[in-house]
Amino acid sequence: MERGFDKPREGCGVFAVAGRSPSVAASQLAYLGLFALQHRGQESAGIAVSDGTTIRIHKGMGLVPEVFKGEDLSGLPGCLSAGHVRYSTTGGSRLENAQPILGTCRLGTIAVAHNGNLVNARSLSRALQEEGAILQSSSDSELFLHLLARSGRRDIESALIQSMQSVVGAYSLVVLSADRVIALRDPLGIRPLVVGEMEDAYIFASETCALDALNARFIRDLGPGEMACATREGLTISQAVPSGKQALCVFEFIYFARPDSIIEGSNVHIVRKRLGEALAREYPVDADMVIAAPDSGISAAIGFAEAAGIPYDTGLARNRYIGRTFIRPTQEMREMGVKIKLNPISDLVRDKRVVIVDDSIVRGTTSAKTVGMLRSAGARSVHMYIASPPIRFPCFYGIDTSDQGQLIAAQLDTGDIQRRIGADGLGYLSLDGLISAVGTSKGLCLACLTGEYPTELC
Amino acid sequence: MERGFDKPREGCGVFAVAGRSPSVAASQLAYLGLFALQHRGQESAGIAVSDGTTIRIHKGMGLVPEVFKGEDLSGLPGCLSAGHVRYSTTGGSRLENAQPILGTCRLGTIAVAHNGNLVNARSLSRALQEEGAILQSSSDSELFLHLLARSGRRDIESALIQSMQSVVGAYSLVVLSADRVIALRDPLGIRPLVVGEMEDAYIFASETCALDALNARFIRDLGPGEMACATREGLTISQAVPSGKQALCVFEFIYFARPDSIIEGSNVHIVRKRLGEALAREYPVDADMVIAAPDSGISAAIGFAEAAGIPYDTGLARNRYIGRTFIRPTQEMREMGVKIKLNPISDLVRDKRVVIVDDSIVRGTTSAKTVGMLRSAGARSVHMYIASPPIRFPCFYGIDTSDQGQLIAAQLDTGDIQRRIGADGLGYLSLDGLISAVGTSKGLCLACLTGEYPTELC
Amino acid sequence: MERGFDKPREGCGVFAVAGRSPSVAASQLAYLGLFALQHRGQESAGIAVSDGTTIRIHKGMGLVPEVFKGEDLSGLPGCLSAGHVRYSTTGGSRLENAQPILGTCRLGTIAVAHNGNLVNARSLSRALQEEGAILQSSSDSELFLHLLARSGRRDIESALIQSMQSVVGAYSLVVLSADRVIALRDPLGIRPLVVGEMEDAYIFASETCALDALNARFIRDLGPGEMACATREGLTISQAVPSGKQALCVFEFIYFARPDSIIEGSNVHIVRKRLGEALAREYPVDADMVIAAPDSGISAAIGFAEAAGIPYDTGLARNRYIGRTFIRPTQEMREMGVKIKLNPISDLVRDKRVVIVDDSIVRGTTSAKTVGMLRSAGARSVHMYIASPPIRFPCFYGIDTSDQGQLIAAQLDTGDIQRRIGADGLGYLSLDGLISAVGTSKGLCLACLTGEYPTELC
Amino acid sequence: MERGFDKPREGCGVFAVAGRSPSVAASQLAYLGLFALQHRGQESAGIAVSDGTTIRIHKGMGLVPEVFKGEDLSGLPGCLSAGHVRYSTTGGSRLENAQPILGTCRLGTIAVAHNGNLVNARSLSRALQEEGAILQSSSDSELFLHLLARSGRRDIESALIQSMQSVVGAYSLVVLSADRVIALRDPLGIRPLVVGEMEDAYIFASETCALDALNARFIRDLGPGEMACATREGLTISQAVPSGKQALCVFEFIYFARPDSIIEGSNVHIVRKRLGEALAREYPVDADMVIAAPDSGISAAIGFAEAAGIPYDTGLARNRYIGRTFIRPTQEMREMGVKIKLNPISDLVRDKRVVIVDDSIVRGTTSAKTVGMLRSAGARSVHMYIASPPIRFPCFYGIDTSDQGQLIAAQLDTGDIQRRIGADGLGYLSLDGLISAVGTSKGLCLACLTGEYPTELC
Repeated sequence: MERGFDKPREGCGVFAVAGRSPSVAASQLAYLGLFALQHRGQESAGIAVSDGTTIRIHKGMGLVPEVFKGEDLSGLPGCLSAGHVRYSTTGGSRLENAQPILGTCRLGTIAVAHNGNLVNARSLSRALQEEGAILQSSSDSELFLHLLARSGRRDIESALIQSMQSVVGAYSLVVLSADRVIALRDPLGIRPLVVGEMEDAYIFASETCALDALNARFIRDLGPGEMACATREGLTISQAVPSGKQALCVFEFIYFARPDSIIEGSNVHIVRKRLGEALAREYPVDADMVIAAPDSGISAAIGFAEAAGIPYDTGLARNRYIGRTFIRPTQEMREMGVKIKLNPISDLVRDKRVVIVDDSIVRGTTSAKTVGMLRSAGARSVHMYIASPPIRFPCFYGIDTSDQGQLIAAQLDTGDIQRRIGADGLGYLSLDGLISAVGTSKGLCLACLTGEYPTELC
Repeated sequence: MERGFDKPREGCGVFAVAGRSPSVAASQLAYLGLFALQHRGQESAGIAVSDGTTIRIHKGMGLVPEVFKGEDLSGLPGCLSAGHVRYSTTGGSRLENAQPILGTCRLGTIAVAHNGNLVNARSLSRALQEEGAILQSSSDSELFLHLLARSGRRDIESALIQSMQSVVGAYSLVVLSADRVIALRDPLGIRPLVVGEMEDAYIFASETCALDALNARFIRDLGPGEMACATREGLTISQAVPSGKQALCVFEFIYFARPDSIIEGSNVHIVRKRLGEALAREYPVDADMVIAAPDSGISAAIGFAEAAGIPYDTGLARNRYIGRTFIRPTQEMREMGVKIKLNPISDLVRDKRVVIVDDSIVRGTTSAKTVGMLRSAGARSVHMYIASPPIRFPCFYGIDTSDQGQLIAAQLDTGDIQRRIGADGLGYLSLDGLISAVGTSKGLCLACLTGEYPTELC
Repeated sequence: MERGFDKPREGCGVFAVAGRSPSVAASQLAYLGLFALQHRGQESAGIAVSDGTTIRIHKGMGLVPEVFKGEDLSGLPGCLSAGHVRYSTTGGSRLENAQPILGTCRLGTIAVAHNGNLVNARSLSRALQEEGAILQSSSDSELFLHLLARSGRRDIESALIQSMQSVVGAYSLVVLSADRVIALRDPLGIRPLVVGEMEDAYIFASETCALDALNARFIRDLGPGEMACATREGLTISQAVPSGKQALCVFEFIYFARPDSIIEGSNVHIVRKRLGEALAREYPVDADMVIAAPDSGISAAIGFAEAAGIPYDTGLARNRYIGRTFIRPTQEMREMGVKIKLNPISDLVRDKRVVIVDDSIVRGTTSAKTVGMLRSAGARSVHMYIASPPIRFPCFYGIDTSDQGQLIAAQLDTGDIQRRIGADGLGYLSLDGLISAVGTSKGLCLACLTGEYPTELC
Repeated sequence: MERGFDKPREGCGVFAVAGRSPSVAASQLAYLGLFALQHRGQESAGIAVSDGTTIRIHKGMGLVPEVFKGEDLSGLPGCLSAGHVRYSTTGGSRLENAQPILGTCRLGTIAVAHNGNLVNARSLSRALQEEGAILQSSSDSELFLHLLARSGRRDIESALIQSMQSVVGAYSLVVLSADRVIALRDPLGIRPLVVGEMEDAYIFASETCALDALNARFIRDLGPGEMACATREGLTISQAVPSGKQALCVFEFIYFARPDSIIEGSNVHIVRKRLGEALAREYPVDADMVIAAPDSGISAAIGFAEAAGIPYDTGLARNRYIGRTFIRPTQEMREMGVKIKLNPISDLVRDKRVVIVDDSIVRGTTSAKTVGMLRSAGARSVHMYIASPPIRFPCFYGIDTSDQGQLIAAQLDTGDIQRRIGADGLGYLSLDGLISAVGTSKGLCLACLTGEYPTELC
């Protein structure tokens, strides 16, 4: 529950290790790497390993340290591994959907872990079933496994390249077979995926923070449509499918990625600071302090404060111990106004003009609650600024932004939203402000902001 | 593991509810209140409740949401409760020491929960055993229970007052009997304890943040040597033992308490900002950014940055998912330099002159590691400033500051410490700076800084 | 660990409910039915249910009452169910192999639970993989699911009939789809399967004892090659594939089935008594008492005692509390002669001539230990009689009789075995004695005794 | 739930090891010994060990193999141990009452485990509380601990002897201190306690079956009022308090003890057979078969069958897998007649005159159900014979025979009971028959049969 219920919800993180020596403990490295990617998914975690012959897997519901205990790792010998963390939703969370997905087919035993979302998953699933396939989960990883199994090709790389012809959408994939680890990225490069290196191993990971966790060296982002294959012989990277321009999900910068990660050459924290700076320029305001909606608004709030010349402060204290098993308060207690997660620092904000900076608004309920708290705590005024444009369109590439009916910005204009959340002012970052702040030379997917989708939608 | 291994370690939080109506769900309120006090202890948690006749208890190892599941609370009916969270140490953590401690004696069945440390626990324990007592735990709560049981008095309040004659040290205590809740505080008021009120209940808590969690109204701090007794008839507060001047543990302000709590009239976050401001005044420095040692240095760092006119930033990303069950990396992995908890944002600190502000140093190992990380990330210089004077003396009142041999400031002078941790500069806040920043009219216990203990030491 | 390590090991039990009214709690009935079949498998248990639209499943490692807790059953609504218990082996026990196996294919979502073993599983699996199938477990149930998914047929019954053309071996199958429950039995009827009826539901079960548990009425054994389909409209039974003569596994009578079950018209306990009577006639012996190897030898021992006119007694006390998690004694303790499970009643057997009757011998290690115990307890002589002929050949139809190299009777003749186990006499029942004692009009599979297999072996 | 709900319920088993060499793994031996005593208590289990200096303890709810996992035993180093199993009741089972009870007092740290019941527990508890004691459980063991702590004596043996002056009732006690293990038995020897020996250790146990489990040599029963003390120097046994004649609980023979145990020189199984023989002589009957109420009636049924010249058979199949967590069937299902535990073998009893032998009747509900089952299965007649006289009086020495209002024989005469349970005949063993069958030279406690209690009742 650490990540916000009222935030876009990320679709997973992937991690893989291709050791070049039997002494590489691929499951332990995957444990640390997945733990560094925990912010990308808290629902389930899994690691598959190969000792060169046999592939073993362990997965379960919960955080990485909840799923893996000491003996679990030692039961996963081998120097090749692929791992996955999955995001947490309220319903429909089942062990069957935990990844990696493992199966045996004519290409051998294969484990697949996937970040992203295929837009043609439904039709693909139907077509596969027509041809006799059985689906045991609702994960896109299993679809990849079926495409591999049905490819006429006799080697996994060729089979993967062939499979990429059939799928449309976002996929950053790591694939483990007995003797190799393969990573690949969809032709638009919608979800991130990086390649790194340790003394005796190649690493693939959703974000660079997982390389840092292992003190691994960053090699490069895997490019759109590229496939990397690591074996004991070494690493090869090839253009598996042609790629036009990239369409990297802009919300990786705005919200998903860890601030210490570097995506396509840009550090996430610094990009977020620039978002805050741009926001401050777009909305000159006279205020006593700038605070962040914890924790995702911190970087942008610092940037806003600096650019606006208003002191940054921490006006909301956050309880960091909340976990999956927290007992929700009864309706009666909620009516009493119990506060589980956030508490305003009243002596700080009392009689002050407060600017609060958040990264985004999805449904608006949390924003309303936060503004209300600050008012109750005595703030003279509360202006809210959002470090991204309004989210008006659904995402089909792996982010759960709720359905369009729940997107407040798809229903109301900014004035109405301001009234709904009870702020004295509300400002969203402009699209231009966003693009120039991100400043990556690569293309971005802005579909949830503009409605212009980079792929067909099936 | 959320709280620092290389920090002073707090000795627990207490919480109690005295409902005036049978409809008050005292166990649910205690659950929320203890959760708000979770930062004071992560080792074990427990709640005892009374339904007017029977006292029931549930306690276990772990965080509040790990110890209590839905059915556990519904098995604790009643409108009176007393709860406890206990701190986490590496060894010696046993269920027997979880509190509240429950026992039946001539005064009836009584539950006791205690924050603090008795300096005469050993001699008291020996004397009690000589008189025939059996001790089933090593907790001071059990000693109170024995004193109550052996008092000649026929009512709990008198027995408690009598018991207070026998004990020396720090104790903020909540006591539950079938029909009442009693709270009391040692004559020096070493540990905090506050009284609050909801529509139908009185609340006692270690910190005001637990009142805020329930949306309860703050009444006042319980004074040194005071005892409060809440029954269905109402609340009475009396001076149980005479009190000279107060000796409130200054580390409640510096490190333990949550930033949103108010202690003796002062908001903790604001006090910490003032510590940072004073520190900036004592150490004028030319630098590019001020960062905090996360998370305990944040408030002071913001104050420092403001006073020094240097931008505040977040130079270290923190992994928030670490929990009790995290599998420690092998020695081999530690040598590889794996990073579990903190990662510097290299693109931010590279070639920059960085000031890092922390609240305190105990053993210095974490400080050295953090400075090292910033250097590896390319910082041109790293100056560390500490928002408290050096800890040179052990605490006997409930804080585990390690034994004196491990206190780096008891062994080395500041210059040596600076070299040890590898910083380009190191400055501690002066004692005067500390006192004026705290600015409370009440007396403070500064024993770990000055060696002047407010009680005899037995 | 309740069932013997040194015994043939059964391959599972199946159970299904087809309620004719929404009020039938199919998961609760399956729970009770599977619990009655627990002797057929202690490794894992699972129940799938359909509420007419959605199929849900819960499965896990362990005994039925360990896998299912109260809330698990209430999370399985619906009046149709299929369940499974799986046998316990030392290695290779994995959750992935727990049944029922659930998958979605062009025929919809289907759950399959299987008792038996396909002799062409390997070649079938290879062929399916060649055609693009992915196998996620090593269970034969998954093979059936693949055959169903690949059948050109549009209804499950036809698809099942077609699938039966492709498989060779033993299968008593229950299949659950959204709106129906289907049961079928291989053309030789190797494993048992019965049909029963309650007020509002049809029941399929491996043994009649599961019908008795629900107080359900026995309708009839499902015949070899028959398929039964139960929907809300009623029950139809048809001859799915032609069947020559039956080849019912004789070890269902000798060892597997519960004594209160009735197989093909014969009560198991009474058959076993007749085995013991026949044995007594074949080996006239002068002795003081007849005891049973607990518990599987009891029925035969009673029959032997009656026929021989020697008193039956219980010479070995058995500890009934042993479970999956028992900590095995160290090598050192085993050398001390610690006794976990059995203890002779020394005062009873001392100086007595003891006959011990067991149902079968697989590896002989337990027999040797038991004879040794009785000798140490002072028995003057120990004669062992076995209520079945020697097991000389491996089973390919779902019984784990160890590989042939471990079958003592495949290596040694009876005299050598007698010396190996240290008995004063050893006698196996003759094949003729067995056949006439079983006395069923239906044909039996005697392959493990004779080496004549009723199917090709692939 | 393995032991009958409608049976007298035993109050616990005790076990202790006094190794004479540091290599003795006292916790592992205790684990095996307690497992052999599991029939005496299934509610909780615990082991305390001493390594000569420190006493450690592990206890929990459930069966021995559920409470202790591999690492739990290795966390209990030392060559001295004391352990306990506690019986299972429906309510009031709490971890606080699990034994051994551990405490530190002026005699050092001591663990106490107790089988039996003090009749003056209440007044003792009140008196102790008046003197300032705190009681943390409702176990008699804690009372002993208080008496030890309050004794003026400076050594544990003297303190124990003094304590024995204060208590009235049944107690077979094992006591562990840092350097010794002490066992003692009340002056009437109500509960059993034996002394045994291994190569390097002395053993104390409730029953000899626990010695057999370790392959330990039986030395002798500890006599009434005797105390044994084992240290590294050796074993001493002394008469701690004077003893008149013994009053051994006769239900140890009738029901509680394991059939392979030897109590005061008599093997339990053989005694039970004699009870059955005596019963057959008292009730000559013409019948087709004698069956046992499983499992407690088996020995007596065999004896009855032999003496009556009627064949013994097993007419009721029992499901052995039932455990603590079994989900009770709903009321609706109970009305359907679901059978969880027992199932008659209909083909065996149909049209037969059946004699069923049970060891005792407490409330009669199970007897009625069993008789009903046999009738439904087609038995022509069902005669029930009970291998003990009617239980008409409550036990105050550690057996839960329900309160007198629930004892069917305290309410109804035999004819009425026969009608109530629906049998064609019902016969209880006579008191003389019982006494001569038990045939021990030692005195017996027959209080629940005669109302003559061997102690004052307080």
